[in-house]
Amino acid sequence: MTYFTNINRIQYEGPKSTNPYAFKFYNPEEKVGNQTMEEFLRFSVAYWHTFTEDLSDPFGVGTAVRSWDKYEGMDLAKARVEAAFEFFDKMNVPYFCFHDVDIAPEGSNLRESNQNLDTIVSMIKDYMKDSKTKLLWNTVNNFTHPRFVHGAASSNSADVFAYAAAKVKKGLEIGKELGSENYVFWGGREGYETLLNTDMKLELDNLGRFFHLAVNYADEIGYDGQFLIEPKPKEPTTHQYDFDVASGYAFLQRYDLQDRFKFNIEANHATLAGHTFEHELQYARVNGLLGSVDANQGHPLLGWDTDEFPTDLYATTLAMYEIIKNGGLGHGGLNFDAKVRRGSFAPEDLFHAHIAGMDSFAVGFKVAQKLYDDRVLEEIIEERYDSFGRGIGKEIVEGKANFHSLEDHALKLDAIPQKSGQLEKIKSTLNQYLLRAYAGE
Amino acid sequence: MTYFTNINRIQYEGPKSTNPYAFKFYNPEEKVGNQTMEEFLRFSVAYWHTFTEDLSDPFGVGTAVRSWDKYEGMDLAKARVEAAFEFFDKMNVPYFCFHDVDIAPEGSNLRESNQNLDTIVSMIKDYMKDSKTKLLWNTVNNFTHPRFVHGAASSNSADVFAYAAAKVKKGLEIGKELGSENYVFWGGREGYETLLNTDMKLELDNLGRFFHLAVNYADEIGYDGQFLIEPKPKEPTTHQYDFDVASGYAFLQRYDLQDRFKFNIEANHATLAGHTFEHELQYARVNGLLGSVDANQGHPLLGWDTDEFPTDLYATTLAMYEIIKNGGLGHGGLNFDAKVRRGSFAPEDLFHAHIAGMDSFAVGFKVAQKLYDDRVLEEIIEERYDSFGRGIGKEIVEGKANFHSLEDHALKLDAIPQKSGQLEKIKSTLNQYLLRAYAGE
Amino acid sequence: MTYFTNINRIQYEGPKSTNPYAFKFYNPEEKVGNQTMEEFLRFSVAYWHTFTEDLSDPFGVGTAVRSWDKYEGMDLAKARVEAAFEFFDKMNVPYFCFHDVDIAPEGSNLRESNQNLDTIVSMIKDYMKDSKTKLLWNTVNNFTHPRFVHGAASSNSADVFAYAAAKVKKGLEIGKELGSENYVFWGGREGYETLLNTDMKLELDNLGRFFHLAVNYADEIGYDGQFLIEPKPKEPTTHQYDFDVASGYAFLQRYDLQDRFKFNIEANHATLAGHTFEHELQYARVNGLLGSVDANQGHPLLGWDTDEFPTDLYATTLAMYEIIKNGGLGHGGLNFDAKVRRGSFAPEDLFHAHIAGMDSFAVGFKVAQKLYDDRVLEEIIEERYDSFGRGIGKEIVEGKANFHSLEDHALKLDAIPQKSGQLEKIKSTLNQYLLRAYAGE
Amino acid sequence: MTYFTNINRIQYEGPKSTNPYAFKFYNPEEKVGNQTMEEFLRFSVAYWHTFTEDLSDPFGVGTAVRSWDKYEGMDLAKARVEAAFEFFDKMNVPYFCFHDVDIAPEGSNLRESNQNLDTIVSMIKDYMKDSKTKLLWNTVNNFTHPRFVHGAASSNSADVFAYAAAKVKKGLEIGKELGSENYVFWGGREGYETLLNTDMKLELDNLGRFFHLAVNYADEIGYDGQFLIEPKPKEPTTHQYDFDVASGYAFLQRYDLQDRFKFNIEANHATLAGHTFEHELQYARVNGLLGSVDANQGHPLLGWDTDEFPTDLYATTLAMYEIIKNGGLGHGGLNFDAKVRRGSFAPEDLFHAHIAGMDSFAVGFKVAQKLYDDRVLEEIIEERYDSFGRGIGKEIVEGKANFHSLEDHALKLDAIPQKSGQLEKIKSTLNQYLLRAYAGE
Repeated sequence: MTYFTNINRIQYEGPKSTNPYAFKFYNPEEKVGNQTMEEFLRFSVAYWHTFTEDLSDPFGVGTAVRSWDKYEGMDLAKARVEAAFEFFDKMNVPYFCFHDVDIAPEGSNLRESNQNLDTIVSMIKDYMKDSKTKLLWNTVNNFTHPRFVHGAASSNSADVFAYAAAKVKKGLEIGKELGSENYVFWGGREGYETLLNTDMKLELDNLGRFFHLAVNYADEIGYDGQFLIEPKPKEPTTHQYDFDVASGYAFLQRYDLQDRFKFNIEANHATLAGHTFEHELQYARVNGLLGSVDANQGHPLLGWDTDEFPTDLYATTLAMYEIIKNGGLGHGGLNFDAKVRRGSFAPEDLFHAHIAGMDSFAVGFKVAQKLYDDRVLEEIIEERYDSFGRGIGKEIVEGKANFHSLEDHALKLDAIPQKSGQLEKIKSTLNQYLLRAYAGE
Repeated sequence: MTYFTNINRIQYEGPKSTNPYAFKFYNPEEKVGNQTMEEFLRFSVAYWHTFTEDLSDPFGVGTAVRSWDKYEGMDLAKARVEAAFEFFDKMNVPYFCFHDVDIAPEGSNLRESNQNLDTIVSMIKDYMKDSKTKLLWNTVNNFTHPRFVHGAASSNSADVFAYAAAKVKKGLEIGKELGSENYVFWGGREGYETLLNTDMKLELDNLGRFFHLAVNYADEIGYDGQFLIEPKPKEPTTHQYDFDVASGYAFLQRYDLQDRFKFNIEANHATLAGHTFEHELQYARVNGLLGSVDANQGHPLLGWDTDEFPTDLYATTLAMYEIIKNGGLGHGGLNFDAKVRRGSFAPEDLFHAHIAGMDSFAVGFKVAQKLYDDRVLEEIIEERYDSFGRGIGKEIVEGKANFHSLEDHALKLDAIPQKSGQLEKIKSTLNQYLLRAYAGE
Repeated sequence: MTYFTNINRIQYEGPKSTNPYAFKFYNPEEKVGNQTMEEFLRFSVAYWHTFTEDLSDPFGVGTAVRSWDKYEGMDLAKARVEAAFEFFDKMNVPYFCFHDVDIAPEGSNLRESNQNLDTIVSMIKDYMKDSKTKLLWNTVNNFTHPRFVHGAASSNSADVFAYAAAKVKKGLEIGKELGSENYVFWGGREGYETLLNTDMKLELDNLGRFFHLAVNYADEIGYDGQFLIEPKPKEPTTHQYDFDVASGYAFLQRYDLQDRFKFNIEANHATLAGHTFEHELQYARVNGLLGSVDANQGHPLLGWDTDEFPTDLYATTLAMYEIIKNGGLGHGGLNFDAKVRRGSFAPEDLFHAHIAGMDSFAVGFKVAQKLYDDRVLEEIIEERYDSFGRGIGKEIVEGKANFHSLEDHALKLDAIPQKSGQLEKIKSTLNQYLLRAYAGE
Repeated sequence: MTYFTNINRIQYEGPKSTNPYAFKFYNPEEKVGNQTMEEFLRFSVAYWHTFTEDLSDPFGVGTAVRSWDKYEGMDLAKARVEAAFEFFDKMNVPYFCFHDVDIAPEGSNLRESNQNLDTIVSMIKDYMKDSKTKLLWNTVNNFTHPRFVHGAASSNSADVFAYAAAKVKKGLEIGKELGSENYVFWGGREGYETLLNTDMKLELDNLGRFFHLAVNYADEIGYDGQFLIEPKPKEPTTHQYDFDVASGYAFLQRYDLQDRFKFNIEANHATLAGHTFEHELQYARVNGLLGSVDANQGHPLLGWDTDEFPTDLYATTLAMYEIIKNGGLGHGGLNFDAKVRRGSFAPEDLFHAHIAGMDSFAVGFKVAQKLYDDRVLEEIIEERYDSFGRGIGKEIVEGKANFHSLEDHALKLDAIPQKSGQLEKIKSTLNQYLLRAYAGE
């Protein structure tokens, strides 16, 4: 059966196209740098936002019009798989991602839930045989069910810890079965509502234990996907332990997990934590921890996770710049952890939104690659820091300076000349590159 | 004498120019719609940020390198006038703006301050004779001096109220003398530090009285500039009475001032109040209150007034769209109430920054005009609201409906069909227009 | 049947009581100033948070354990009425509030919805005969159903406007039937997701028309409750038209509605708009617009409406101070528009939470009354502003000054002496009053 | 000479005292738990806010009235020392803190600056002989001077790195000379304005190198104070590397510095980073990193560092609770990194403000100690987490569980019973403890 009846496979038609169901900037086969857009961008569809989400909000019930919603239970789950692979094909995306509960309904107990998963995983595996679309990452949802009200791996209940572990065990098995390239942990309830009733030390220790157990089990079954932590500062909890990449990095080092984990960085989570998207990407990159990206955007004036489709070309450019500097994302990709607005409830909006996102990252990629190839920012930086390549600067970097030699040097200094940082000029240049990208200049 | 020795008049050289001292997008004589860029954009240089500002911040002293800073007192004031008109000419801007204390130092009492002003105003008047650059607006600074520690027109001290009035009186006389097209009130200290020691009612009443006195005096001396209120929610005070355009509008109506005042809307003040720049512009526009614009931008992750030069092309596009819908700004203009970063301390940065701002608004203007000419958003809106052009909708708008007729209508309705708002598709279209603008498509 | 089986009527036991089901500070019969706590505080239970809310959040399904949830449809609605009046009685509250959909399920069309309402309203009316608990205000929910996806009175669909009107018509009839003392408008969808597809002018005009129609109908049927607007800046929409009290006041004046409306001020909505709770209360008070209060609190570090039960004694003290200055709330009251945390899912938590809120306002009331009686803040203010009682200040206030006389005065001034605002000392005093309140000192 | 002529030594007079120059709650000799208030609270005066600060803000010049301001240069520096020790004595505080530039003016070069420091340090040392007030910590100001415009240890200029090092070298020598118990690093410019011109990797590496050099030099000269990092997320920079305790901890581990550094945690910096004060304290505590406290508070609605004197009794209570759990602060203390408001410019306000802060922490201490002694929160936590003391929970904690045993356990579980977190009840209890503290109940 067909779920998106009036929509054909989305093709590249170029910027002047007025066909809303065409790519204007994303041309999968176009080479940018050494790779095609398709190879480098590694787009992924988020199963939950595209096939499960009903577009409810805290003040309103769902509005989404989805043709598969006439089904229920396992029939609904199966219809979603059919719709998903139709959508993947029509959008021409190389990857998708899911949580366990996105693809199969929870049963009345763990055994039944696992049986439901087995049925759907088997169906997905079959569909994947005939599809180019692979599994970027999978995970389990350890936050929606009431049992996780006080946390999962950081719950006050040992039973819940065990239940969460059993779900992750299944998740790793599914990851192996479907060949997921990464396994993600987003700790939506791993934090606290209030410190007044919380044992932070025990919760952090348990979280560390949990991750070690997951690593051990992955090794045991030969699952070789990359483990990723997805930071988010707050919401639904008042405070989440993986507040941002830095706090996650502190945790990984503290619990000796830094060699097995990288980060899945979400733009909207970055901004909720008070960071730019590019900051989180760069901080992870320079510490060797950039794993994958949840490609969305927030609203700068709203204090919650809006999970909008990414359309800000500044953000996509600066994100792609970091990814280029990282030599690409390796096993990772650009997963659209993004939902259409509640007012964009028509099935067609799913296409508009993914086209918007893919086109925006395609533009960002081209602009960033051009900036990189022209060494625009690299030269600015090289020149700014050149004092560390010679004299006292070289001694500092090589570990040959000490407070005595530095004081001797300083005592000889008159006024130290400074060069302007020229931010305004750099921003002008960035605008020029952005606008000229389309003309291929 | 020459203050910007190595810099010639900035010319338009087009987007491919690598000359940092050239406009890439702002072409004064280029027609966009029915007017030239220069006629419609009405750019203005802010005297305080460009000639007086030292780039100090709360944790650091000034860094600005300004060749006129070798002078002091009235000599410094005179050097600034010379530098200013050199800068206006080299930047080729039609307007400038100032506060009283920007152009002349305060004396030891009001009389002396006024004498200083007279000297410099006379000098500026002479310079203006040979310059194309006119005075967009002037104002007085009733916030920096310790006497305004508890407010100016809303001070708890009647002496301060009187002093503030005397300063505005002089400001209006200067405005008349120099032909300023607007007179602006920014109430930097018209608010409170705490409610615990504040009589809000008296302060608001006094503020209303003050504005009436100003209007009366302007009429008396025949000053015909437009009065403008510039809202800002907070900083330096904890709460300012002109929090945003809406609160200013409430105030104007309450004190029967709505026929004499419009608003000077600053982008960064809008975002500090929790609004987008375009919201404040549109809200003012639909209420007939859009007077002028302080063209800058804030940093979405910083909670204070950063007064950055405007380079975000989304913001300039949406701002220009409102201005086009308003039929232009009339007496108003686009004043760069923006300062270079503390790290951009070189005199050249003043040029880079203004070029960045002017180019960004030029792009925004072209994109907005194209959107407007193609009726992209207008058609979306016409179609969305078409139900108010017929049937029950027409009755509503024409005042013929009542709760009985509306209930009758509703009782006959089955499910009400809704159309998607299609925000994602609209944002895609916006990106296409932005990128195609440069190619003139 | 009994829904809260193990809980008796909550009694006052004093601050040392260790019984969690007792008031420690709220003593209904205790006189504070000239009235008893019960008379002045006028507490109200919010039907939606207490009897309908399931404690779901955007990342989790409901956790609330409610004995009435075994029922469905109209049986559930009836069980909730029984539970509600049992709760009102046990909590000993004088008021409650509801939206239409809280008390009765929507039917498949308006007629059926209204029939459901008739049944439950009749049942509530019966219960009210034997109860001291009266209806503080009622309203209709014009935001949850998908038909309101693009607004209600500000929808782009005339059908939706009509439907919303029909619901308010019924709401006013119910208000008259049950004797509600106020009728509230919270415009949860009266705003926009994006300006890009919005006709703000038409939407505001329609909102103005809608309110006039409501007023007309109330007059027609003789409903004499006070109309209240409840401002909220954002959420669920990106921007709501009733952003705060000031923007609501601008609107009321613009559409000539200021004589028929006051404001229902919610603490958490105030803080989301960037104001303190006491600011919104005072601004409304000095403009004669303080109608009623939604007593809750937000979390200062979270960017969404947390609707917590009010326990911050600073906030309750300063709120009560405003209410005392207002001479009480008249028809209004203190409605606990507050929900227990998702982790506080036990039925007993409903009692703990209301006790926490009532005790907190009782303390706030006592502290505020003592501050007021001792004229602590009044004297500070009188002294601070005394210059407006004589000389030039008196002339200003009496409208006898003009810019000439003020300049004459200013020219004679030397340095203007200023008095310290002494905020730190005032805050110390506030702490003393807070801590001494309990000891009755 | 006497600088605070009308003020005597502040004495404890109890809560009913109406003498503004008396402690109402801080009684130095009163025992709370096993120690006196004076021993445990270890209050410190911040030299910069109390003796150097002029109360300017970004929109206004200084307002502070300080009798020592009639002096200049080194005379001013000396007068401040005299005033400081008079103030310490009258406030009866055991500690003070300073940056190098607070106590002595910078000279025209490093040598001259160091000479100025030597003169004043010698004078301070003399004063300390006759004073009970000791040096809690010292530091150097590597952020105000224009040379630090692009950072200090993370500057792009090797000369600046050297200059910063020379200043810290001198700072350590001064620390040793005056016996400071800690040495603090606040990296006000160690961060970036924009990533576009920043080499984050080099800057972080250099910061790591700098700290190692400081540690080496301290060891060399036998300075045994505790090194402290003071996190702040932003301001003056757009992003500071020591964003919060967690990011600082990531850094310390990454650069192998975790054994030599702890944290100096400032309340207002915590809230600017999106954390509660108590979160930062607890996170540091459970990781063994709680060193000292900058006792102030921010305004929850203002987005910049307001550095208010701490008067919120909830915050002081929860902070003291963490400090009690930590067994006190060891070498650390409670330093009032707080300034009087610009409107509180009278010299007397310095006393009011410190009294406000000291009284607030005294109340917080008593309430927290009582909560701790009664095991109010400890019992809640013990009961909540008791499942980790037995069965599968014990196995988890002891490292005996794995994903197989956990799955086996989970497969046997039916619905997992959860207990309410009871936040509302806990908050009620907290209010009771707060209000009863004064009565000693």
